[in-house]
Amino acid sequence: MKILMCVPNVSEGRDQAVVDALAGLVRAQPGVKLIDLSADKDHNRSVYSYLGEPQAVLDATKRFAEAVLAAVDMTTHAGSHPRHGALDTVPFIPVGETTTEEAVAVARQFGRFIGEMGVPVYYYEDAATRPERVSLVDVRRGEYEALPEKLKDPFWAPDEGPAEFVPKSGAVQVSARFPLVAFNVNLRTGDLDIAKRIAHAVRHVNGGFRYVRAIGLDLTGSGMMQVSMNLTNYTQTPIPRVMEAIRCEAARYGVAVASAELVGPVPLGALEEVVRHYLQIHDFSMTQTIEMNV
Amino acid sequence: MKILMCVPNVSEGRDQAVVDALAGLVRAQPGVKLIDLSADKDHNRSVYSYLGEPQAVLDATKRFAEAVLAAVDMTTHAGSHPRHGALDTVPFIPVGETTTEEAVAVARQFGRFIGEMGVPVYYYEDAATRPERVSLVDVRRGEYEALPEKLKDPFWAPDEGPAEFVPKSGAVQVSARFPLVAFNVNLRTGDLDIAKRIAHAVRHVNGGFRYVRAIGLDLTGSGMMQVSMNLTNYTQTPIPRVMEAIRCEAARYGVAVASAELVGPVPLGALEEVVRHYLQIHDFSMTQTIEMNV
Repeated sequence: MKILMCVPNVSEGRDQAVVDALAGLVRAQPGVKLIDLSADKDHNRSVYSYLGEPQAVLDATKRFAEAVLAAVDMTTHAGSHPRHGALDTVPFIPVGETTTEEAVAVARQFGRFIGEMGVPVYYYEDAATRPERVSLVDVRRGEYEALPEKLKDPFWAPDEGPAEFVPKSGAVQVSARFPLVAFNVNLRTGDLDIAKRIAHAVRHVNGGFRYVRAIGLDLTGSGMMQVSMNLTNYTQTPIPRVMEAIRCEAARYGVAVASAELVGPVPLGALEEVVRHYLQIHDFSMTQTIEMNV
Repeated sequence: MKILMCVPNVSEGRDQAVVDALAGLVRAQPGVKLIDLSADKDHNRSVYSYLGEPQAVLDATKRFAEAVLAAVDMTTHAGSHPRHGALDTVPFIPVGETTTEEAVAVARQFGRFIGEMGVPVYYYEDAATRPERVSLVDVRRGEYEALPEKLKDPFWAPDEGPAEFVPKSGAVQVSARFPLVAFNVNLRTGDLDIAKRIAHAVRHVNGGFRYVRAIGLDLTGSGMMQVSMNLTNYTQTPIPRVMEAIRCEAARYGVAVASAELVGPVPLGALEEVVRHYLQIHDFSMTQTIEMNV
């Protein structure tokens, strides 16, 4: 089945009425299912996860965007999370049989729709139009406050829409990307430095696995420390390889793994490699499960 | 979603036209999907696996039973597999959110339908009406040839239908049971005795895990030996516990696990414990996957 997931990040996490109205709007869209919603008052940001067939998700996201751009005003927005606009990021994520190319095609259709509304759009990650725009960190550098100057710079001409600053809305960042896996490992130690060293060892930026971003965190009150990770491509850097590397690094300090967690909706495909690795079923596929044959 | 699987075993494995016609009949039933079919000429037996919502599976199985009882004649049947009737066994297997109780209720409805056709029915396993009938081996003792005498014995009065011998059809055995997991572990040894000793160590009958049946086999030509298992309740005796016990026993002989295999359609629930055990995600549920939320 061709499924597309969309996880828009909205610059509103404090006004519960707005957050709820947007959730209600998603729930009312035909052929689309809201599977997760988290709003953060510190970040002043809310994240919606919904999925369905690609066309249904595109249509729902257009309606969602219209509502967000009407309801959220960036001229009064403050929060601890970096942001570039009211509808800050709109990643389209292929699930099941959907390809990255198909997700990019939907992202581009959505971006054109926003551009036609008169709001500047930047494509990033797999939807990026040039290498300098692949990284969201680069695209969003300076945040909303830098946008008026940025839009005057031809280097930062938007991918869709006018090169004009829209104070209420800012810019919309649209992408396609492989599903992220948020994977955290909890360590039986009170020493934050050990968690930081392990995060350092496994993450790409310091020489670790190519598709791992990681930080060491204090799980305040639990007496444990955490290696908190995003795996950005679970087929190239699978979960068990990261898990065993962490176990091995932790053992150097005489520290054991207490538990782990997968946060948010997980692609079933990310668990295939868990079965293949630990049960040594070298060619295992989730298509062998009864449920995938219903 | 409530899903029921049905795996009828039919006493015909040589006449390909009959085997194919029965498969075609299943494929033509609305709301039901045939996911596996195996016919064995030695056993002179064929096994169909199909699934769908409970009512659709019940309806399809009634049509299937009518066709089997019309096509298969036990008076001329011979084969190496034990059998009691033309439609020898009809297990209903709960999948996903379906409970064992619901599977039993469908089994009983199906059994009454067969009884009303004038064919004796025995319920076994979770559908059994008394302890002496739980084991299929006990119910089927003496096979088809013993049925005329057995039906005269009040102790073996059928659960449905008349206590009369129907030469063409024999008796139908109807059950509900937890999904089986067929799990094989391949060992890097040419010594069959090691595989047999390990099978002995892990199987219930010799003091091993309660829900494990196991034998040691020679994987002829591969240079490996196999511990071939059925796990009859994967929640009570989960796959990783069995895998690690085998690894541990094999290590006593200096033998390594080369690979493993899950045979046939696997319930997704059986893989939950793989994630929980090896990734130490103690409360992991497959409902967290994106695909289970579509």
